[in-house]
Amino acid sequence: MPGISIEAFNQLTAMELPLAAQNGCRAEKIGDGTARVRLPFNDSLTRPGGTISGPAMMALTDYAMYAALMGAIGEVALAVTTNLNINFLRKPEAVDMIAECRVLKLGRRLAVLEVTIYSEGQDEPVAHATGTYSIPPKQTD
Amino acid sequence: MPGISIEAFNQLTAMELPLAAQNGCRAEKIGDGTARVRLPFNDSLTRPGGTISGPAMMALTDYAMYAALMGAIGEVALAVTTNLNINFLRKPEAVDMIAECRVLKLGRRLAVLEVTIYSEGQDEPVAHATGTYSIPPKQTD
Amino acid sequence: MPGISIEAFNQLTAMELPLAAQNGCRAEKIGDGTARVRLPFNDSLTRPGGTISGPAMMALTDYAMYAALMGAIGEVALAVTTNLNINFLRKPEAVDMIAECRVLKLGRRLAVLEVTIYSEGQDEPVAHATGTYSIPPKQTD
Amino acid sequence: MPGISIEAFNQLTAMELPLAAQNGCRAEKIGDGTARVRLPFNDSLTRPGGTISGPAMMALTDYAMYAALMGAIGEVALAVTTNLNINFLRKPEAVDMIAECRVLKLGRRLAVLEVTIYSEGQDEPVAHATGTYSIPPKQTD
Repeated sequence: MPGISIEAFNQLTAMELPLAAQNGCRAEKIGDGTARVRLPFNDSLTRPGGTISGPAMMALTDYAMYAALMGAIGEVALAVTTNLNINFLRKPEAVDMIAECRVLKLGRRLAVLEVTIYSEGQDEPVAHATGTYSIPPKQTD
Repeated sequence: MPGISIEAFNQLTAMELPLAAQNGCRAEKIGDGTARVRLPFNDSLTRPGGTISGPAMMALTDYAMYAALMGAIGEVALAVTTNLNINFLRKPEAVDMIAECRVLKLGRRLAVLEVTIYSEGQDEPVAHATGTYSIPPKQTD
Repeated sequence: MPGISIEAFNQLTAMELPLAAQNGCRAEKIGDGTARVRLPFNDSLTRPGGTISGPAMMALTDYAMYAALMGAIGEVALAVTTNLNINFLRKPEAVDMIAECRVLKLGRRLAVLEVTIYSEGQDEPVAHATGTYSIPPKQTD
Repeated sequence: MPGISIEAFNQLTAMELPLAAQNGCRAEKIGDGTARVRLPFNDSLTRPGGTISGPAMMALTDYAMYAALMGAIGEVALAVTTNLNINFLRKPEAVDMIAECRVLKLGRRLAVLEVTIYSEGQDEPVAHATGTYSIPPKQTD
């Protein structure tokens, strides 16, 4: 069973991550170390060239990692990104973006995660990222 | 002389980068391949732990690179990020963030840039990033 | 059909990449944008902790990308790495290492590739990397 | 005072890092969180195009980080790289390479470091890298 429900994750982030909330980011699927999240298209996400901005995709990447990590270890709001590396592969369409994330390695203190971003309905990814989250010590540590 | 003035850059991005504009990002200094940009603090940038969110810093990083690149090559709105790698070093203060960027390598088609982010008034950086921008071919190419 | 045969790739790299040749790196499978390559275990690859050194895995990563790229575009010895990002996930065993690579995006001038490294016989990856290769213009360009 | 002397570091790595030793890597300067290291040129480092191979520079990067980290925290042979990101900027000359490293952030468990690589005698860097080392807990932890 995943460490956090979709509802609990979406409620947490709606309250605690104002930027992601403004953009309408939400989780659609959370498993044990996996997640699928959505960024609804809107005009404020665009950049010159009529495409979605890099920072919007970086924010979605980080959001997907937060979801997959909590899917693995439960509600740990204080987990923080320590590194994120993203490659932009193709020009996104002016549609919703879907990010799929999975944990590559779950340690006691660090987790490494991988994210692939798609324009909804397309097979070819528009971006690919990896990142590291630092997991805070438990109260009992 | 820098390839773009501070005023022209701020006007371009106010119109063409709605996310950055919403956050109040602006350039304060642009040189020939260098830039200093500011992200004014506001509550919507926060995340659990009372600190500034990673995605806000990633957006600022990308904005700083855009400024330094245009400082080197002039107004080329269609330049796009192809890779960005960021390390988060310290918990930012609840104050404005300043990003300093410089071009490490300027090629005809690719530029590699480095960004260091500070909490205003602090000496120790809160984040450090490198990235690559792809420069579109000139019309005459 | 892959752009290069396993034999041609191994012969090219045996002659042109002395470091990889010394380490005994070789391709075992090359497809159209995919490759599996092997680094035979030997004592000179080790580091403190009785494990395989990071640089040995970085070299294997780069070698796997070179193979998958030529599998996609043919023998282009002058293709060069422009960026490589690697996360070390688990302590490798003192056995051969296998790297699996696939092209994430093939452009005319740049290719982005992903590599996963395993200790032979293990399911869990020991390292994961992404990288970018620059493809030289064709003589006719 | 640096946490390790140049002599102690070179002796440790000559014995414990066979690959680096074969390549003739050595430290020339170690400070408190900084290091300058050298990779002597030799033909086995080359790759197609008559230039120094990427993996040779990655190995030098990792070596420089190991030196700067021990300059900061003392002889901790079991510190290991968890992430390394490198951008190749210019074609290196067929001469010795010099890597300059400094610690960007020293935590109790993680250190983030930055490396710039030069062809000896040249001003423009040939590569730039950042990476993270994991510091093992002390026996008394």
